[in-house]
Amino acid sequence: MNLILLYEEDFAGPNTVRLQGRRLKHAIDVLRPAAGDGLTVGLLNGPVGRGTITSISPDALEMAVVLDREAPSPLPLTLILALPRPKMLRRVLLSSASMGVKKICLINAARVEKSFWKSPLLGKERLQEQLLPGLEQAEDTLMPEVLLRPLFKPFVEDELPAIITNTLALVAHPAEEENCPREVDRHVTLAIGPEGGFIPYEIEKFVSLGFRQISMGRRPLRVETVVPALLARLF
Amino acid sequence: MNLILLYEEDFAGPNTVRLQGRRLKHAIDVLRPAAGDGLTVGLLNGPVGRGTITSISPDALEMAVVLDREAPSPLPLTLILALPRPKMLRRVLLSSASMGVKKICLINAARVEKSFWKSPLLGKERLQEQLLPGLEQAEDTLMPEVLLRPLFKPFVEDELPAIITNTLALVAHPAEEENCPREVDRHVTLAIGPEGGFIPYEIEKFVSLGFRQISMGRRPLRVETVVPALLARLF
Repeated sequence: MNLILLYEEDFAGPNTVRLQGRRLKHAIDVLRPAAGDGLTVGLLNGPVGRGTITSISPDALEMAVVLDREAPSPLPLTLILALPRPKMLRRVLLSSASMGVKKICLINAARVEKSFWKSPLLGKERLQEQLLPGLEQAEDTLMPEVLLRPLFKPFVEDELPAIITNTLALVAHPAEEENCPREVDRHVTLAIGPEGGFIPYEIEKFVSLGFRQISMGRRPLRVETVVPALLARLF
Repeated sequence: MNLILLYEEDFAGPNTVRLQGRRLKHAIDVLRPAAGDGLTVGLLNGPVGRGTITSISPDALEMAVVLDREAPSPLPLTLILALPRPKMLRRVLLSSASMGVKKICLINAARVEKSFWKSPLLGKERLQEQLLPGLEQAEDTLMPEVLLRPLFKPFVEDELPAIITNTLALVAHPAEEENCPREVDRHVTLAIGPEGGFIPYEIEKFVSLGFRQISMGRRPLRVETVVPALLARLF
């Protein structure tokens, strides 16, 4: 937690906050600060700044805060991700959020196991809980939007054309000859398949909309590895 | 497991192998192949090829193998990594191995918790067990070498100068102005610090040897995210 995320309801006055629960526990167990110490803070979906501790006890952490900087720039990318298994989803949400992705569409594909869609981790609050550590890690405040699209065909035919308008649309497919482009200076829509990849029908659907097939080379990588790799290659 | 790794002792004849244990279980539970099916196989530290199943039962999987391709090229990179916590180490070893890293030095640093060095996961066999899924994922066969260096100063002063000779030596440090270089065409030595980063004394030691400080930008990232990101940016 490199930044403590603040909510409107934390404010006891215009520039003073009072924290309890998870953030207090983290401060006491990990940061171990004393009155007078400064911590990096940020308002959810708002600016970033500094909190100076006025009091800390097992009951509450109180700070005087100055929020005077913008959050880091979002990554100009929409991530279309075949729903991974829950454990992997958690790690991909965290790493994507920490790298600045602000829109993630979790979609179905032939090789996505049906049971993954029943995971309680896909609830709106549970998704935000998984994204939060990514924001705190990267000193960011802007909560990403996550869309769930459990039907492949309606998503691709009805929604995807609008999503990719004015973007560079790429679908990652291991062993494709074209390497992932570097230092792209426009918005990217990046589709990444499930373990085992998209099936040919799915790839054809993406290609028919104008997606280019790209890869990180000959080595098939896990989704948790390929996501940070592709984002770092693109921007 | 995109490739089944074979050992010399698996060979019942010059071109026939017989597998039991973990690999047989994986074949039965996940791949569910039948006699006549082909699987990608590779000989540990040797070539890659194809195995055709001649028989499969709960007791053993037998294949006729043809090993006729080279393993994918190694990444020209030596990774110097401040020892992460065991759970994170496992993921970093897997992703590094899958991306083709062949030499990893796990080193001490002021912000590495002493207890991490006592982890049973640092035993030679346990390290190989953690690297293996990375090789199987990426259809690679060449086992990376992992060195443990629990003393920072002797490592940096006595060993590191030889390691960085004729390489581009980089130390990752969040918030550094210089962005990680792209498409490097020479061998790289890349040092990555612990959670919280290297302390100034450690950075000075790296810089005094000729390391350049680089970063992935303003966002501090977790080691499991920054490793694939930096490797993808560099090559």
